[in-house]
Parts: sequence; C-alpha cells; structure tokens
Amino acid sequence: MQSKRNKEWSETYKKVNHSLVEERKALNFNQEQLALFLWDGEEKLEKHRQLSKLYTADPILRNTHHYYDMTREEKMECGFKKLNRMAEVLPEKITYDTVFYHVTTNLGAMPTSLHHAMFELAVRYLGDEEQVDKWLPLILDYKIIGNYCQTEVGHGSNVRVSDSLTIGHRTTIQSEYVIAIYNYIIFSIQLFWQGLETEAIFDKEKDEFIINTPKNSSAKFWPGDLGVLSTHGVVYAQLMIEGKNLGVQSFMVPIRDIDTHRPLPGIEVGDIGPKFGFVAKDNGYVIFNQVRIPRRNMLMRYVNVDKEGKVTPQGNPKVLYSVMMFTRLQLLSGCVAGLGKSLIASIRYGIVRKQFKTAAGKDGKPEERKIIDYQTHLHRICPQLANNFAMAFATRRMYQLYNDMMSNIKTKNDFSQLGPMHTILSGMKALFCHTAYEGVKQMRECCGAAGFSQFSNIPNIIDAISSYVTLEGDSVVMNIQTARSLLKSGRKVIQTGKPLNQLLSYILDLKVILEKGKDFKCEAKDADFFKSEQNLLDLLKWNALLRIGQSLQLFADPKYKDFSLWEKFNEKFQIDLIKMSQAHSYYMTAQFFFEGINHFEKQGNCSNLVKHLRTLFRIFALNHLTKIGAPLAISKYLSPQQFRQIHQQLLQEYTNIRPQMLNLIEAFEYDDNTMVSAIGNYDGNVYERLLEWAKSSRLNEKDTLDGFDEYIRPFLAAKL
Amino acid sequence: MQSKRNKEWSETYKKVNHSLVEERKALNFNQEQLALFLWDGEEKLEKHRQLSKLYTADPILRNTHHYYDMTREEKMECGFKKLNRMAEVLPEKITYDTVFYHVTTNLGAMPTSLHHAMFELAVRYLGDEEQVDKWLPLILDYKIIGNYCQTEVGHGSNVRVSDSLTIGHRTTIQSEYVIAIYNYIIFSIQLFWQGLETEAIFDKEKDEFIINTPKNSSAKFWPGDLGVLSTHGVVYAQLMIEGKNLGVQSFMVPIRDIDTHRPLPGIEVGDIGPKFGFVAKDNGYVIFNQVRIPRRNMLMRYVNVDKEGKVTPQGNPKVLYSVMMFTRLQLLSGCVAGLGKSLIASIRYGIVRKQFKTAAGKDGKPEERKIIDYQTHLHRICPQLANNFAMAFATRRMYQLYNDMMSNIKTKNDFSQLGPMHTILSGMKALFCHTAYEGVKQMRECCGAAGFSQFSNIPNIIDAISSYVTLEGDSVVMNIQTARSLLKSGRKVIQTGKPLNQLLSYILDLKVILEKGKDFKCEAKDADFFKSEQNLLDLLKWNALLRIGQSLQLFADPKYKDFSLWEKFNEKFQIDLIKMSQAHSYYMTAQFFFEGINHFEKQGNCSNLVKHLRTLFRIFALNHLTKIGAPLAISKYLSPQQFRQIHQQLLQEYTNIRPQMLNLIEAFEYDDNTMVSAIGNYDGNVYERLLEWAKSSRLNEKDTLDGFDEYIRPFLAAKL
Ligand SMILES: Cc1cc2nc3c(=O)[nH]c(=O)nc-3n(C[C@H](O)[C@H](O)[C@H](O)COP(=O)(O)OP(=O)(O)OC[C@H]3O[C@@H](n4cnc5c(N)ncnc54)[C@H](O)[C@@H]3O)c2cc1C
Ligand SMILES: Cc1cc2nc3c(=O)[nH]c(=O)nc-3n(C[C@H](O)[C@H](O)[C@H](O)COP(=O)(O)OP(=O)(O)OC[C@H]3O[C@@H](n4cnc5c(N)ncnc54)[C@H](O)[C@@H]3O)c2cc1C
Repeated sequence: MQSKRNKEWSETYKKVNHSLVEERKALNFNQEQLALFLWDGEEKLEKHRQLSKLYTADPILRNTHHYYDMTREEKMECGFKKLNRMAEVLPEKITYDTVFYHVTTNLGAMPTSLHHAMFELAVRYLGDEEQVDKWLPLILDYKIIGNYCQTEVGHGSNVRVSDSLTIGHRTTIQSEYVIAIYNYIIFSIQLFWQGLETEAIFDKEKDEFIINTPKNSSAKFWPGDLGVLSTHGVVYAQLMIEGKNLGVQSFMVPIRDIDTHRPLPGIEVGDIGPKFGFVAKDNGYVIFNQVRIPRRNMLMRYVNVDKEGKVTPQGNPKVLYSVMMFTRLQLLSGCVAGLGKSLIASIRYGIVRKQFKTAAGKDGKPEERKIIDYQTHLHRICPQLANNFAMAFATRRMYQLYNDMMSNIKTKNDFSQLGPMHTILSGMKALFCHTAYEGVKQMRECCGAAGFSQFSNIPNIIDAISSYVTLEGDSVVMNIQTARSLLKSGRKVIQTGKPLNQLLSYILDLKVILEKGKDFKCEAKDADFFKSEQNLLDLLKWNALLRIGQSLQLFADPKYKDFSLWEKFNEKFQIDLIKMSQAHSYYMTAQFFFEGINHFEKQGNCSNLVKHLRTLFRIFALNHLTKIGAPLAISKYLSPQQFRQIHQQLLQEYTNIRPQMLNLIEAFEYDDNTMVSAIGNYDGNVYERLLEWAKSSRLNEKDTLDGFDEYIRPFLAAKL
Repeated sequence: MQSKRNKEWSETYKKVNHSLVEERKALNFNQEQLALFLWDGEEKLEKHRQLSKLYTADPILRNTHHYYDMTREEKMECGFKKLNRMAEVLPEKITYDTVFYHVTTNLGAMPTSLHHAMFELAVRYLGDEEQVDKWLPLILDYKIIGNYCQTEVGHGSNVRVSDSLTIGHRTTIQSEYVIAIYNYIIFSIQLFWQGLETEAIFDKEKDEFIINTPKNSSAKFWPGDLGVLSTHGVVYAQLMIEGKNLGVQSFMVPIRDIDTHRPLPGIEVGDIGPKFGFVAKDNGYVIFNQVRIPRRNMLMRYVNVDKEGKVTPQGNPKVLYSVMMFTRLQLLSGCVAGLGKSLIASIRYGIVRKQFKTAAGKDGKPEERKIIDYQTHLHRICPQLANNFAMAFATRRMYQLYNDMMSNIKTKNDFSQLGPMHTILSGMKALFCHTAYEGVKQMRECCGAAGFSQFSNIPNIIDAISSYVTLEGDSVVMNIQTARSLLKSGRKVIQTGKPLNQLLSYILDLKVILEKGKDFKCEAKDADFFKSEQNLLDLLKWNALLRIGQSLQLFADPKYKDFSLWEKFNEKFQIDLIKMSQAHSYYMTAQFFFEGINHFEKQGNCSNLVKHLRTLFRIFALNHLTKIGAPLAISKYLSPQQFRQIHQQLLQEYTNIRPQMLNLIEAFEYDDNTMVSAIGNYDGNVYERLLEWAKSSRLNEKDTLDGFDEYIRPFLAAKL
C-alpha cells in the first residue's frame, strides 16, 4: 500500500532511524492513491517521478546543502547554471509549468521564473495573434528574457478611484447606499492600476509610443528578473493619446541590448538590493527617459490603437486580471508545497528527536519521549497538517474553476466567471499565504534550534514564501476586494432572493439567519454533534454568514448615517470587512475540501484513506472554529460549553491522526534531493548529518577569517 | 516639550517630509520625561546620547546601508573591525552592558557578545574569588575570548528527570498528587541539565579533569563565539568522580592556542554553518577527545572539589540559574528594542506613504490617505505599540527584582527569590520573545514590499531576534516551567490560604473564584466599565486565575485517575498548562505596566503623558482580552455582548492614541545611525532613499554577474 516512490526508498535506504521504520510499517491506507491525488493524476505524478529522478541523477541539477551557505551572487550563478542545464536535458520546453515544478522541488529560485510565470503569460493572454506569433517563440527559446513591470516605488496595491466619485457623499437611504457600494466595487476593479504614473504617450507622427517616468515615485520597482537579466519588460503605463488619459495598458518595452546586454538609451535599470527572502532573484528598478517603442508594441488583444490613434476595445479589458489570477493560483500551490515540505521535516524530526524521560518504556522504566508526542507539539503540527491538506484540495478545485473560466473567455468571450473567481481567489490568496507562512514558522519552532539552522531547509522555505503575503496583492487589500463582492452578493440575496453566482450560492442561506432571528441556535444535542463533518462545515458556513449579515447591518445602520462611504469602508468597519472575508475564505476552503473528499470516496478510493482525510477535515474545521468562531459565540448560536466541546473534540482528533501523520505527509513524495534537510531527510540520521554538514561550513574553510589577524588577534595575550 | 535629541533633530534636518513635521508639531506631552523613563534614568539616557553621537561621528563605528548587502564573512569582518575600534574609543571598558547597547543600536551582532553576556557572567558568578581574580581581567582585556558551552546536538532543553521517580505511578488521592507535582517541580529544576552527556572525569593522580565527548549526540553544538573566535569555553559537563556521577558542573576549558589560534590537541571545533538569523555570529560545535584541564578549572564558587576528590557544596547550586536569568532579562530588553525600532520604521512609513484617494482633502476633493489611517493598519500597529510599552515597563521592573535578588544572594546567601523570579521570568521570556517576533513580522507586512527590502532594516531586526523564541530556553519548555510553579502556588493557596511568595500574591484571589462558584460574574453595568484600567487589570487577573483553577481541577479530576502524572503533564493537559502560563504572564506584564504608570504619575510627571500611557495600557489589556479571554467567556464571567463592548472600546482607543503615536515611539530616541532605514529614517524621504540605496546594490557593481556569459548569454539571439 506504500506509494511507489516510498516503496523504492524503503528498499534503497540502508541505515534508517528505527522509529521512522516503525511508523512507516504502521501504514494502513493506500498511499499511492493519495500520491495520485496530490500530484493531480497519473500523468503528472509519473512526470514528477521521472523529473525527480532526473534532477537527482544529474550532477548539475542535483541540489546540495552547500547551497545554503552561498552568497547571493553564488546562488544566482547556481541558478543560471541549472537553467542552462534544464534547457539541455529536460524532455520538454521550459514553460511556466516547469517553473512551478522547479521552484517547489529545487532549493533556489529559477532565474527566469518571472519571465515564464508572468512575462510569458502576459504575452500569451494580452497579445493579439500576430504578437503572440512573433514574441512567444522568442520567449520560449530565451532569445529574449522579460519581466512583468507593474509596481512603482510610489504605488503598489493602489487603486486610485476616479476623482469624480464624490467623497463627502452621505448615505441616508438604503438604495443610495447600494448604488454607492456598487460603484465602489466596479470602479475599484476597473481602475485597479490607475495609481500608476508611468506614461505611454502616443506619437502619431512617428507611429510610436513614448514610455516615460515622470517623477521619482514613478520609477518601476520590484519586478523580478529585471535587475540583471531582462532584455524586455511588459510595462504597465497610462495610455495617453492627444493629451487624454485612456487608462492603463501594457507595452512590450526593450530594456537591454540583446548583443551587449547593456541598458538601451534612455533606460536606467538595476537590481534593488538585498531582501528578506527571494535572495536569488534580481528584483529590479527601471526609470524610462522618453523611450520610444513602435505602436505595435502595445499588447493589443483586447484594445487596439490604430495609426490614427483610434482606440477600439475588442473584448473585456478585465482579462488583464487573468494573468494575475494565474500567478495567484500558482502561489496557492506554492503554499501547499512550502508548508508540505516543512511538515515533512518537522514530522520526521519530531519522531526521531527525543527529549525528557517522560514516556513509559517497555520494561516499565522511563524512556525519552519523541517530541512529536508532547500534546503541545501535536497541537502545533496537526492543525498545520490539516491546513495543508485542506489547501491542497481547495487549490486543485480552484485550478479546475480557473481552467473552465479561461476556456469560456477564450472560446465564448464569456466573462461571467471572472468576478466570482476574483472574489474567491483574492480572499483565498490572502488566507493561504498567511497560513503557509505562519505554518512554516511554527514548524521551524517545532524543531528548536535545529529548525533555525539553514541545514534544516526550513529557513530556505521561508525565504521562498515569505513575500507571498505581499506580492501579487497585499493581503489586506485582497481581503477588501473579496469583502466588497461579499457585501454586494449579500445585498443581492436580501433584495432579490437570488445568489449573485453559483459559486457563492451559500450566501442564499443568509435568509435563514434573518428569518430565524433570535431563534437562530445550534441544534446540537451533545458533543457528538461536533464529530460530523457536515455539521462542522455548516458551522463554518454560519460563521461566515453571520459576518456578512453583520457587515451589511453596519453599513445600513442609521447610527452611522453621518459617515461617508469612504469613512465606513476605511475607518469604521474595515476590520469587520477583513474578518468577513477571512471567515468566507475559511468556509470556501472547507467546502472544497469536503466536496473533494466526497468525490474522492465516490471514485472508490481506499476507505482508510478517506477516514484519515475526514479526520484531517475535522481538525481543520474544529481548529478554526476555536480560532475564528467569535460570531457564533456572540450570536449565541453556540454556547461557551459547546466551544469547550469543540476544543475537546479537536484534542481527540490529534490522537486519531497521530499514527498516520508520517505516512500521510510522505505521500507528497518529496525526495531527499528536494528536502536537502539534515533533520528532515528520509533516513532520519539527524545528528550525524547535522555534524557532518556543520563541518562543511564555509567559515571552516579558511584558517583565519578576514579581519581576524588585523582586528582581533592583537588583543589575545601571547602568553597567559 | 520635545525630548532633547528629537529637538536637536528637528533643528538639524532640513528636508523633512511635511506629514512627519505636522505630526511632530502636534506633540502634546513631555517627551523628555518619557525618554528618561525608557532609558532608565538620567545617567543612562545621557550615556545613550553620548554614545549615539560617538557612534554616528566615528567613521568605523558608523553604520551604513551597505551592511545589508554584505556576505556572512563580510559582516563578521565588519564586526571585528568595530569591536577593535570600540576598545579604542569607548569611554569605558567593554562589558555585557556595552554588548547590550551595541547590539540594540548597531546593525549587526558584536563578535564577542556571548563572550561578555554569558562567558564573562559565568565566570563572575560561578567562579570563586581566586578564579574571578585570575580570569576576569583576561576576559575584559580580550586576552582570552570565551563562550558558554552548554547545548549538545542531542540535547537542548532536555531535563532528564531522575530514573528513580516511578513513572507508572497513579494519582488516586489528592495528597499524593500534591507530592508528585512537588517532586516533579523540584526535580526538574535541580536536574535541568542532566540530559547533557559531555563528561568531566576527575583524575586524582594528576589532579586534573578529563573532558570528553562520549558520542555523536554529545558534541557541543550552537554556542555563540565558539565557531571561529573562542580561545576558551565554560563547558557544562557531568562531574564524574570515582565512577560516580555527581551532576552537572561548569569548567573553564582552553579550546584554541592563544598564539596560533589553532584548536588545542584533542579538540575538534568549528562553525556550524548558516542559520536563519544571527548571520554574523559564529555559533559553533566542539568535540572533546580526552582533553585534560587542571582541577582548579572547575568553577568552584558553589561546589568545591579538593585534591582528594571530596565534593563540598558551599551555597546553593541553583545559582547556576542566575546566569541564564540575566541573559533572559537581556532578551526582554532586546525584544523591546527590536519591536521598538520596527515600530519607528512602520509608523514613520505609515505616515509618509499614501495609497488610494479615500480621504477628504481640504477642498472637498478626495486625497490619498496615509496608510496608517486605515483602520486595519491601526489595528496592526496600535496593539504592538501598546505591547512595546507594556514590555518596556515590565522589563524595567524585572531588572529591579533581579538586582534585589542577586544582592540578597551575594550578601545574605538568601535564595528565596530565585524560585519566584524563575517562575515569572520563564513565562515572560516566552511571551515577550513571541510577541516581539510576531510584532516585527507584522510591522514588516505593514510596510508592504518596502518592509521586505533589507533597506528598511526590518529584516535585519528579524535576523537579530528570530532565534529568541528558541535560545535560552524554548518557549514551550519555559511555559511549562512557569506552569509547574503556578500549579504549586495555586495548590498552596487552596491548602493553606497563604501565597507562596509575595510576587505571586495575586493567586490568593483564587479563593474568591472558588467561593463565588456560579455567582462569579462580572459586575459591569455598561460599556464604560471597560474604560477603567483597574477593571481591565482585574479582568486579566481573573482570566489567569480561571486558568489556574481549571488546571488544578483537571489534575485532581477522578475522571483522569487512571493516567499517570507523566501522561497528564505531557499528553493530556499540556496545552492547558501552556495557556495557563501565558495568561499568567499577560497578567504579570499588565500589572507591572499598571504599577509603573502609577509610580510614574506619583513622581509628578506630565499629565498628558500619563494619559497616553493609560491609553496604551487599555489597548494592551483590551486587545489581549479579545485574544486570550476564552476562560472569561467559558466561565460566563463575561457575556458575548461584553466581549463586543471590549472590541468596540479597543477601536475607540486607536483613535485616541493615533495623534501621538509618532511622538510616543520617537521618545526611544533611536537615531538614524541606529535605524539605517530607507523608509524609517527621521526625515521620511522614503522614495528618494529607496531608489538611491537600490542603485548601490552590489549586483549593480559588475557589468555582468558570474555565470551570466557562460550560461545565459548563449541563449540570447544576436539579432532578432
Ligand atoms: C518579492 C517581491 C516580488 C515582486 N515581484 C513583482 C513583479 O515581478 N512585478 C511587479 O510589478 N511587482 C512586483 N512586486 C510588487 C508587489 O506587486 C507589491 O508589493 C504589491 O502589489 C503590494 O504593494 P506595495 O508593496 O506597494 O504595498 P502598499 O500598497 O504600499 O501597502 C503598504 C501597506 O499598506 C496597507 N494598505 C494599502 N492599501 C490599504 C487599504 N486600502 N486599506 C488598508 N490597508 C492598506 C497594506 O496592507 C500594507 O500593509 C513584488 C514584490 C515583492 C515583495
Ligand atoms: C541562535 C542560537 C544561539 C544559541 N547560543 C547558544 C549558546 O551560546 N550556548 C549554548 O549552550 N546553547 C546555545 N543555543 C542553544 C539553545 O540553548 C537551545 O536551542 C535551546 O536550549 C533549546 O533546545 P533545542 O534547540 O535542543 O530544542 P529541543 O529541546 O530539541 O526542542 C525541540 C522542540 O521540542 C519541543 N519540546 C521539547 N521538550 C518539550 C516538552 N517537554 N514538552 C513539549 N515540547 C517540548 C520544543 O518546544 C521544541 O519545539 C543557541 C541556539 C540558537 C538558536
């Protein structure tokens, strides 16, 4: 029942820590089925296995722990070398798929990850046919290398809402308020990039655009792959024709000379310096001084500008969103992979590491306890394990929805799913990035000092995912986006009794709460109620709906009638909005997890496996109910006593899942070439490896460090 | 009313961001009085001001943003150079005081920070008179450099409790249970280091100890300053005399030759490699192969071993704790400084950075809003500001208590305060380190991508404090230490009606809860109740006491009589114990903050300042009540409605404190040489500085990076 790779490993590795061996022997479900699900089907799993072997066998693609000790430049060089090799040996052309596989299984960033994940995608989706035909082959062969050049030093997540929207505006009667919210939502979506200051001025004479950075704050700042690599960028700028600002469009702008790799005339470009994480990426800045590009370098799939400067929309400009959406989706997967790897390390280490003689040995004498068997340790790891499976199921569902949406857009010009997808994905992006980062941090702490050593790999994972909360949409801003649509949907339900969209149909049940009023109480008879997944899912639903109802009430409350809509949104109720969005995202995630398990079961999958997944579902739901369940308490839907029962049930579930934790997480099949972890490798020989790798520290290479002889040695007494 | 340095700065800096100027003008309290408090009195504040000027003026001690872009070796070299310079120009000899000042105001670690903060201290406190006379001068003049060598790769926080304590042991009747808990506490305190495996075997013949590492897992691992610097270490090892293990003692062990700086015979030593933070420190490993040291190299202040191998205790061996305690105290200060600096950066940036036209401008037109004025932003910053002031007040009180305790130990051999201090400090260490780390992380997120750039300084602060949760006592283990004593104290109160110790006298009120039983209800009439600091303090007290009562109940509950004490402590109730310890620490912190403000007021300090401090106190209490107040909800002491009032009051307090946030945090008087932050420097010229520093990125120095020509350029098309 072991998955294929785990089986191979158990046969290959000779000296394996005996506690790990024992826990693996206890495997009681079909691990292969789980691996198949986690890798999204046979084909992808097979590809993963092949690539994993290829990476491990190849002397250049293979990871080593020396990576952790490299300088920024060395890490980058290492990336260059690997990229070159990948182009040589990988069975297929490198695309954004490869990037994702590479960055989640490799130690460092891939030099051209943004080139693929955003530049390539921008061209694919925003270029018209002729443009795609022209540029895509160059991109895929690295004849040009590009970036996605949007953020400016002065404006990141900014939405500069149209000045014409009156701001002193008071909401006195409900219908006005509805309209105002609606406007706010529409404006903010359509004008998402209006804060940008970079200009693209049309010069009819020469049939060119002039790209220009008007002031300091408009310098482009942060794009990845821009600092030292890019020859081109897809630059977002205000389209100016005959003095009129026609909104933000994207432009293919050459940045460095292909021959010399020097910046082109009028362009100042460079790396922005060291960062908290993302060490191996060259996030850059660029300043344009009247840089001329041909008119046809504007990406024209959805908006055409002809020779005369005539602008013709040809489709829905909202599609600009789809690129960001795809990257956000990839971030969701990145969260699952990052947290997953840190869980593998911490679970293995937790089983191998023993501290304190507090366990009963076979002969009745006290034995040292595996640290994972301390209740607090389970309380840190199990919820994260559950989070990771929940995120994995939800992410898979999101990809399906995204693919459906994109094919509708491309084939039927049907944009109806864009809004709801945006609503769900924004909140989920915020939630997952936060969850993964917190989770990885906790796994680090679970490993004590060993998790603090780079050799655990955990700091390297933090390096990779720590920026997720900010990039591709700051979490707060993302949650606000989601919150706005929820308000709108809630309002629609109340007014028309219909959901805004099938994906958000749960909001229909808002009416149940309103109808029941004071009688809205949980019908749980006893603690067993909290053992049912359906009940737990419903609790999360009511929790989200209570938040939505409360927010609607706040906005309509005459007590606040003297506050403008801006004040309400930004000063009075913003915290409520964020909490509403979060409660919604927890529910959506749980829903997708729940449905996924049911679907999985229907396919005739191993009943033990389904049992474990249900346990993980319960841990996910119970844990979050104790954390974000305030609305259920405040509305008295649940009593304090019931919260206590929820907590007790949660503790019980830890014990249920404990024996299979290792086998569940190992179904991800991350090999040692991915883990490269002194404490989290397959064989669990942690102390030997910690010592051995320590000895290889580069500080130990030299007899004396620079500066020692000059500044320190003079102090030391020659003779004592 | 500006503090002296702030006044100087406002007169010196020419081009200051106008929003900062305005907020500084609004100062309405005596900032100098606050600075005096924060720097612990006139003398220390004056010293800070002098040192701050000295550091800024000195070309070697001065910080630069280039530091952020250095490799590990360069950072270390930079440290060596600064240390050398400090010895030259500082007015006083370098001691652990200097270390603390240096590491909190300087960008990187000080090479000899452990040498002072732990090696020097260990000698001072554990050496007898003759030993101190011999070694201390060598230490202070750097004729030797040492480390504190305790942790082994196999054992960190381990307490290996004596094997003789029966483990299957069932607690059936209460008195047994009390004794068992008591034993558990005593054993675990006295045998804290018994998990260590390094041996110090007495060789009577030669009047020497043989220091030996028996196996892989016993290699010393992690001591700072050991990797490349140390000539000596204070090594913790099992004292073995004539085959008998006499427990852990500390030994002065020469490690490297003073002349050649090569490891001495029998010693393998080196750096342990890269870490998540603490980049500029050489945490090391060392393996001893039968290394001989003179008998008198055992530190003998409290235990004497004579030529015959006769062991004479001469005082309380618990004093070993005092060294760790002092370092933990310093960590508390480190938390205040780290969080404080990140608050300065995020508050300044929050005022300067504006996003989204959502504010009402003077002419009625919408203006961009300062990001700090978003409600969610205040919700992230204000609680951290309050935490920082609470921690500052509590830390100061802890130093006073510590000094009292130490002088009692030294002059009167009175150890009575050691236990209670240990109880309070352990929990506080866990709480503050967690709070500061979370807080700094949040401040980073508040600054968006800019906080993610090293040039903000925030990542550097994370580098410095991220290990605090682990080093000097893992948070979970620390909380368990505190929890044990709380159980013991609670039990004593119930049995004898007397507190265990004055410091923990609040536990007496446990009786109130027990007496009132079901009538234990909050007497709040309306929401105004939650505006009173005394009421809020009491709420935190009841919250802690409910936890203590509940834990006592759990341990005594006949339902669990079949579980052994180990099972209860480690598997059944450990989470409850941790939460109890945390609730206690929140209360202690609040209490010290509250008393500190009262004391401050009595000294006749500016009433506006006292008003602001009280607001911060309320934010501290209200915020944590919403976060950790579950016991008050479950016991129904507070109703859901009242929790809602608490939340509302909290939001109100944000508005109260908002106008003075900048002025309050600037009372810390961290100058730009300390801040070195593109976004958090005094003048607020954030975009200019971000761009300027970005340009200095070392990646921009070379025309092409290593590897680029070889691995990337070949792809690029010569002609498109
Ligand atoms: C590692 C990394 C890689 C990146 N790569 C790219 C890239 O390839 N291409 C590119 O174009 N950009 C890139 N970016 C930039 C990224 O897209 C922006 O950082 C992101 O859009 C957030 O903007 P900001 O950093 O300016 O934050 P800001 O918008 O300045 O936000 C700062 C703070 O203010 C708060 N805030 C802002 N608005 C509100 C509001 N309305 N209500 C409440 N709070 C608010 C935020 O929560 C945040 O805490 C990258 C960033 C990072 C960190
Ligand atoms: C940067 C840094 C500097 C250091 N400097 C020094 C130094 O100068 N000198 C020195 O001697 N040492 C030093 N140390 C080591 C430090 O003292 C230890 O890391 C610390 O004592 C914790 O031990 P550990 O790391 O082995 O964690 P472990 O004890 O292995 O703990 C691992 C995990 O198990 C959990 N755990 C352990 N016991 C229990 C329990 N009973 N119940 C529940 N959970 C438990 C912990 O919470 C933790 O999550 C340093 C460490 C670091 C990170």
